[in-house]
Amino acid sequence: MAKRLLVGRPLDSARLGDTLLPKRLALPIFCSDPLSSVAYATEEILLILALGGLAVLHLAWWAAAGIVVLLLVVVASYRQTCYAYPGGGGAYVVSSENLGTTAALTAAGALLIDYVMTVAVSVVSGVAALTSAAPALHDQATILSAAAVALLAWMNLRGVRESGRWFAVPTYAFIGVIYLMFAVAAVRMATGTTPRAESAGLPVEQVSVYSGLALVLLGLRAFASGCTALTGVEAISNGVPAFRKPKSRNAAMTLAVMGGFSATMFFGITTLAMLYDVHIAEDPTQLGLPPGTPTATALAQIGRATFGDWHVLFYALQAVTAGVLVLAANTAFNGFPMLASVLARDGFAPRQLVHRGDRLVHSNGVLLLALTAIALIVAFNANLTRLIQLYIIGVFVSFTLSQSGMVRHWRRELANPVAHLTRRERRRIVRRLTINGFGACLTSVVLVIVLISKFTHGAWIVVIAMPLLFAGMKSVRRHYDTVAAEVAIAPGAHPRPLAENHVLVLVSTVNAPSLRALSYAKTLKPASLTALTVAEDPAEAEVLRAGWEAHEIDVPLRVLSTPYRSIVQPLLRHIREAPERGADSVVSVVIPEYVVGHWWEQPLHNQTALRLKARLLFMKNVVVIDVPYRLASARELAAERAKAAAREE
Amino acid sequence: MAKRLLVGRPLDSARLGDTLLPKRLALPIFCSDPLSSVAYATEEILLILALGGLAVLHLAWWAAAGIVVLLLVVVASYRQTCYAYPGGGGAYVVSSENLGTTAALTAAGALLIDYVMTVAVSVVSGVAALTSAAPALHDQATILSAAAVALLAWMNLRGVRESGRWFAVPTYAFIGVIYLMFAVAAVRMATGTTPRAESAGLPVEQVSVYSGLALVLLGLRAFASGCTALTGVEAISNGVPAFRKPKSRNAAMTLAVMGGFSATMFFGITTLAMLYDVHIAEDPTQLGLPPGTPTATALAQIGRATFGDWHVLFYALQAVTAGVLVLAANTAFNGFPMLASVLARDGFAPRQLVHRGDRLVHSNGVLLLALTAIALIVAFNANLTRLIQLYIIGVFVSFTLSQSGMVRHWRRELANPVAHLTRRERRRIVRRLTINGFGACLTSVVLVIVLISKFTHGAWIVVIAMPLLFAGMKSVRRHYDTVAAEVAIAPGAHPRPLAENHVLVLVSTVNAPSLRALSYAKTLKPASLTALTVAEDPAEAEVLRAGWEAHEIDVPLRVLSTPYRSIVQPLLRHIREAPERGADSVVSVVIPEYVVGHWWEQPLHNQTALRLKARLLFMKNVVVIDVPYRLASARELAAERAKAAAREE
Repeated sequence: MAKRLLVGRPLDSARLGDTLLPKRLALPIFCSDPLSSVAYATEEILLILALGGLAVLHLAWWAAAGIVVLLLVVVASYRQTCYAYPGGGGAYVVSSENLGTTAALTAAGALLIDYVMTVAVSVVSGVAALTSAAPALHDQATILSAAAVALLAWMNLRGVRESGRWFAVPTYAFIGVIYLMFAVAAVRMATGTTPRAESAGLPVEQVSVYSGLALVLLGLRAFASGCTALTGVEAISNGVPAFRKPKSRNAAMTLAVMGGFSATMFFGITTLAMLYDVHIAEDPTQLGLPPGTPTATALAQIGRATFGDWHVLFYALQAVTAGVLVLAANTAFNGFPMLASVLARDGFAPRQLVHRGDRLVHSNGVLLLALTAIALIVAFNANLTRLIQLYIIGVFVSFTLSQSGMVRHWRRELANPVAHLTRRERRRIVRRLTINGFGACLTSVVLVIVLISKFTHGAWIVVIAMPLLFAGMKSVRRHYDTVAAEVAIAPGAHPRPLAENHVLVLVSTVNAPSLRALSYAKTLKPASLTALTVAEDPAEAEVLRAGWEAHEIDVPLRVLSTPYRSIVQPLLRHIREAPERGADSVVSVVIPEYVVGHWWEQPLHNQTALRLKARLLFMKNVVVIDVPYRLASARELAAERAKAAAREE
Repeated sequence: MAKRLLVGRPLDSARLGDTLLPKRLALPIFCSDPLSSVAYATEEILLILALGGLAVLHLAWWAAAGIVVLLLVVVASYRQTCYAYPGGGGAYVVSSENLGTTAALTAAGALLIDYVMTVAVSVVSGVAALTSAAPALHDQATILSAAAVALLAWMNLRGVRESGRWFAVPTYAFIGVIYLMFAVAAVRMATGTTPRAESAGLPVEQVSVYSGLALVLLGLRAFASGCTALTGVEAISNGVPAFRKPKSRNAAMTLAVMGGFSATMFFGITTLAMLYDVHIAEDPTQLGLPPGTPTATALAQIGRATFGDWHVLFYALQAVTAGVLVLAANTAFNGFPMLASVLARDGFAPRQLVHRGDRLVHSNGVLLLALTAIALIVAFNANLTRLIQLYIIGVFVSFTLSQSGMVRHWRRELANPVAHLTRRERRRIVRRLTINGFGACLTSVVLVIVLISKFTHGAWIVVIAMPLLFAGMKSVRRHYDTVAAEVAIAPGAHPRPLAENHVLVLVSTVNAPSLRALSYAKTLKPASLTALTVAEDPAEAEVLRAGWEAHEIDVPLRVLSTPYRSIVQPLLRHIREAPERGADSVVSVVIPEYVVGHWWEQPLHNQTALRLKARLLFMKNVVVIDVPYRLASARELAAERAKAAAREE
């Protein structure tokens, strides 16, 4: 009942076809991440450069230009993947087909970490947009961020289709408002009044003097931080099968449109930040402000300066920014469970991650992602700049592996002797090969830059986490392989009944659950049937024996005394020391179980039975049978559930 | 194996007699709490009075005198209880026999809270003694306290007897060092040099002006805080059956000896604190010190001043104080699980608290107590003065109820027409009645004082917690009563075999666990036997069917398709919609279960089976049978366990 209310009616597998996405819905679903990252990428560049003081701020132009070039190259590269892998070409699939298991698991680890970081970073940044407009909420950032992740998880447990429709609105609204802002800014500058940011008058004291190699490193660090603008680009190549036909073409087109939006928005915002003299720093004292002063984000400052007296438009900008950022996290809620499911199907993750839940989404994966992201947000106290340090490494590991895989893919196509390629086809493949090769080179260079410039600032956490994830996935697979070998059977094997079934019924008092268990035991037509009790003191045993006689129960009663006051030990000993019955016989231990309808009633019952079962599991040729006795509260719950099920149908 | 190493070999019930305590061991076991509380009672009085400045510090004499009188009265009262209840006369037993269930549960709630507080307060105070000698540890107080509680819990899981012997040493050492300190102080003062405390020169700035009623209230608050010296007095009356014969007399004598030690030590320490001008305050700034300055406890200051250059003796004092305080918490580790066990036996607490573990102690109770105390220590950041606010109310609630119950007890004895009391016997009973009556009056007055003077300082937490505990215990009892009525059977009822047993075996692949489950199912000689599988896609089903034919399995295979991708729903529907079989038939669902030997392998298997079982429990006439298949890791674990068990015997 509660589950139905929360996640809606179950969806038929056959309706999976219905959930295919037209381009106008695919764009907001798969691209809210790369589009929304323009909301914080500029700011991260400025924050790093601020360490060098006002004199080096102009380097932001160069960093932004480099990032735009990189973005276009990566988009071009991933367009090739859309064509090569119409079934979905995430870094894991491409690496595993072209580069082998080790590369594939490395990519998978990088992707899993990135999905978690996407959720954490996007949500925290979205909440920062909110608190820029409403500074009173500044101290509640952590709890607001965690709540937003929980809300997203809930929406995703309801299924992908409905999510798509909802998510289209803020994404398009965000694009609209940003371009409107550009237009207003252009008009105001053309008419001679360049707006000034609220922080334009603040000093930017340099933390230390950067020159020579140190200045180059600072510039590279700013570039690396700005590379957050590229995160999420691979989502479309991963989601090709969710597009309408022609899938590959539609996906590649959507990717190109996204690249266009992303590049222009990012470059526009950075340009305005420079023209308006936005001064921003991690530590407010660097700007001459008292410690702890809440400062507005760079985008908020640009918006406020551009729209001036049109406060409504400023608040609209902050609202849609918050909206698109929180929804950007949704990209990960699509990708993470899907990847986990693929990994589980390949035996690298626990099997229960394979299955979609009632609403055609991978419920376990959604929950796992949400919990990890919330843990990160709380651990880093919703500090965006510290979180971003963990973000970009994974992204470029998967970019590099994916592009390298594509190079191998195209080379294999070229070398394929059966394909009989026409010259035009060869030329086209060579072109694709060139694009992906260039992409692979460029992204691997950036990966090295990111590693060097970010390692000591937090990226080492990811450098440790990735091999751990890798080893974890490997060992899960090894476990499943071992088990599969263990449980395999010889060709001729088939089931034969066992020779004898000796049944023991555990009783402590003569009551309805005990009688029910005895009745069931008799139904099994066992070779022998004994009732067993473990008595702490003889008086207890006497009461039971009297009840046995009063009710004329025709099953022999054995009383085990318990010198050590433990119920479990005497029973194990009794079973262990029973006369030899041959390897082909089995002992069934029947336990009456109280079934209750409220969670709080649970610890009041069956505790001994639970401990006993845990031990008996490990005994050879022993099977435990719980015979449930449903108490009134359980019957009420069952009736409620049945009524709810009937309403559904 | 691990359990054996941690808690030692199991003890025979018959050896319970061996664990009876001679007086010289009973004193340290039951009295470390009241004896050790002299280590902080004086300090708590001074801390409160310091709020009124130097001028009111002399009131400490009056508070101390009042507390000594109260202590002697309470000791005299409890001596009567020892005689009246040789089987153990804790507040719960006395109240329940003489005042009814409501009073008894009120007393039980108060006692449970007090046991937890005893652990928290004693351990925190013991750690304060340590940090007074080693100020470098000051910031680690919380973690040290929590670790000490964990250590105590571990010692208690090993059993009461060994604990006793260990615990005798620090208690007697503490008494010895305190009296030695008194002797040295007396000699030094007699030879003309009264030592001065290190804080004697510090100012004590008054926080506000206290006069008239406010001054009276401040004095009462100091008195109430000092009443911590009385905590734990009831432990002996509770533990009478643990004494050697004559139990009552030995217990009463031990109680008197304890009272003598306690009163003289407390009064002596308070006197020295006044003579040495110990100045102490909750907030260091009140003493003109910078905020956060760690200050030594009052007892540490007295010790340092008295022993002067004999540093060894000062460190010995701090060590044994820490020792006796941490061990005082042990009183609660004896009392709490015993009370919980009595409550559980009467149906007011979950039944698993009744049983003693392998080492003749109530293991569950020990764990519950330790966890609650650690939670409190962490929540209050190991701040002694804030914890003490929660302590004293419960103590006086149980004192008052216990003494009132004793009054009723003696009046009933006097009124007993069958007893034919001699005049001497009547006189003795009247004397006992008078003592307990006086005790009841005095403790109830003090209870009111404590309530009024402490309520806003934290005692309200206890005032809320007690009714909650009360309601909780009541509702547990109500639940057990309802269930007992539900499962009661009519006089003639006895177990008959059910008409038909229809067995369903769940399979997903043809492997050893599935064959084992099918073999077992055949052994049950069922009315019908079907193998069931839930297939997400037709290809899976085909593979299974092929395996079925290859192995010539003679059990019919039914494939359920799962439109909603849920495994559970189609199964429930299949069972629910089976043709009517009459109310007297049963469906047994056999599930192959993988048994693994490592905890981390657990989430990799059986998850679907678990979810399924949780739902099937609520279906009428359905029994679930897990047929375990032990993987290699489980067989290794079982072999290890068997080897360990063999070594024990």
